[in-house]
Amino acid sequence: KIDASSTNDLEQRMEAINSILEKTYYNVETHSPESLDWFNVLIAQTISQFRTEALSSDNIVHSLNDALTKAPLPDFLDKIKITEIDIGDDYPIFSNCRIRKNPQNLSNLQAMIDVDLADTLTLGIETNLLLNSPKPLTAILPVQLSVSIVRFSGCLTVSLITVGENSDVESLEGKGTALMFNFAPDFRLEFNVKSLIGSRSKLENVPKIGSIIETRLKSWFIERCVEPRSQVVRLPSMWPRSKNVRQQTTPAAATATT
Amino acid sequence: KIDASSTNDLEQRMEAINSILEKTYYNVETHSPESLDWFNVLIAQTISQFRTEALSSDNIVHSLNDALTKAPLPDFLDKIKITEIDIGDDYPIFSNCRIRKNPQNLSNLQAMIDVDLADTLTLGIETNLLLNSPKPLTAILPVQLSVSIVRFSGCLTVSLITVGENSDVESLEGKGTALMFNFAPDFRLEFNVKSLIGSRSKLENVPKIGSIIETRLKSWFIERCVEPRSQVVRLPSMWPRSKNVRQQTTPAAATATT
Repeated sequence: KIDASSTNDLEQRMEAINSILEKTYYNVETHSPESLDWFNVLIAQTISQFRTEALSSDNIVHSLNDALTKAPLPDFLDKIKITEIDIGDDYPIFSNCRIRKNPQNLSNLQAMIDVDLADTLTLGIETNLLLNSPKPLTAILPVQLSVSIVRFSGCLTVSLITVGENSDVESLEGKGTALMFNFAPDFRLEFNVKSLIGSRSKLENVPKIGSIIETRLKSWFIERCVEPRSQVVRLPSMWPRSKNVRQQTTPAAATATT
Repeated sequence: KIDASSTNDLEQRMEAINSILEKTYYNVETHSPESLDWFNVLIAQTISQFRTEALSSDNIVHSLNDALTKAPLPDFLDKIKITEIDIGDDYPIFSNCRIRKNPQNLSNLQAMIDVDLADTLTLGIETNLLLNSPKPLTAILPVQLSVSIVRFSGCLTVSLITVGENSDVESLEGKGTALMFNFAPDFRLEFNVKSLIGSRSKLENVPKIGSIIETRLKSWFIERCVEPRSQVVRLPSMWPRSKNVRQQTTPAAATATT
């Protein structure tokens, strides 16, 4: 009996999905992928604004230095000094947007989007490895390190889901919409790691160090937003509110309202 | 001297805009409008989920009745009872997305999107007009009212802007991205208002009542999100975080990870 009702439930959800596709004139089998050139422009503009602000009065260097000063470091690491920052000058390109049924949840439609970024984002630091054994500061080993992300590409999956702060309470209050996104496991993330260790006899670009850092950064990404994991970010309500009104006050705007 | 520096500033912003357009391969003069069929599907799915929840155990009737009970009413109005609710069964269609320079702010690029909704959203209520002069409850006039939105179409303008909680502090912390949107003044919003006033000699569909309600609802909309006014809604950060991770736990997902 439970089986029958859950089958009915599934059937109802499938019907709902088909009704949505019909009323929005979207056939998942035959619809061609759509371009997102407009979206690329809006995102690029945001990134550009962020970069301008990051560069003004060395904002990003200060922010990062503050973060590194406050961060708890292991006792074998000396203070970290930032020697190089490159926040890039190119923009991600989103393309080929298509709607597909979620194979893991047939009552959910999702958008799949190709993302490609060819840019150089670099962070270079300088520190010392402190060897505290057999006694404190037995040896101090200078380390210079620079890590660049030079390429990212992957398939992004996006959907909108309903979330509730207290989902067990049957009420519309506290309900909201969240953006759920993740990347397919076959993403491509390429790094360029440069290292220089030691003072007199310098070790340059030890391959082991590059691969440790690459693995750590990739794990960071995989653990957060690569399938089967997703990021779920609650979106604010777009319902028009008085407190969100902003009025144009330029002379041009004033004449435009007449 | 001030003129020269502000001209330089404007020139720099224009250069930044041109660089964005170049790097995203978007020519505002020649690029054809893009379809948003995928977006229509995602939005429809969200609306559909909202409707399902609103209808389950009469959630929306309870929520609205609660709101109306709590709302402070003028002393000439009796308790308001909801007699009819229709939350519609169709979805908005977004189309013709194109990037344009903002004529009021040349250093801002915005997306313009046509929106069309043909649906019937109805709220019907029943109450009494209380005539309290010359003395309290001199007369009680029953009123039945039903207001339907049957059509909306307009041109939506969307852009992403940088906002700061404390914009005077030169810091990246507290900085965020906001979605700014409004509708062009030539939007179309059509209503269907039905009214029935009085007990014995009934007045049906007094045109004055319909036009008062239409004007009030249109003003509500115009004051919030019609040019030159905009809605500015701060967006949450999309930076991947541990606390936003959701992992699929279905058997299908478990095998997909191997």
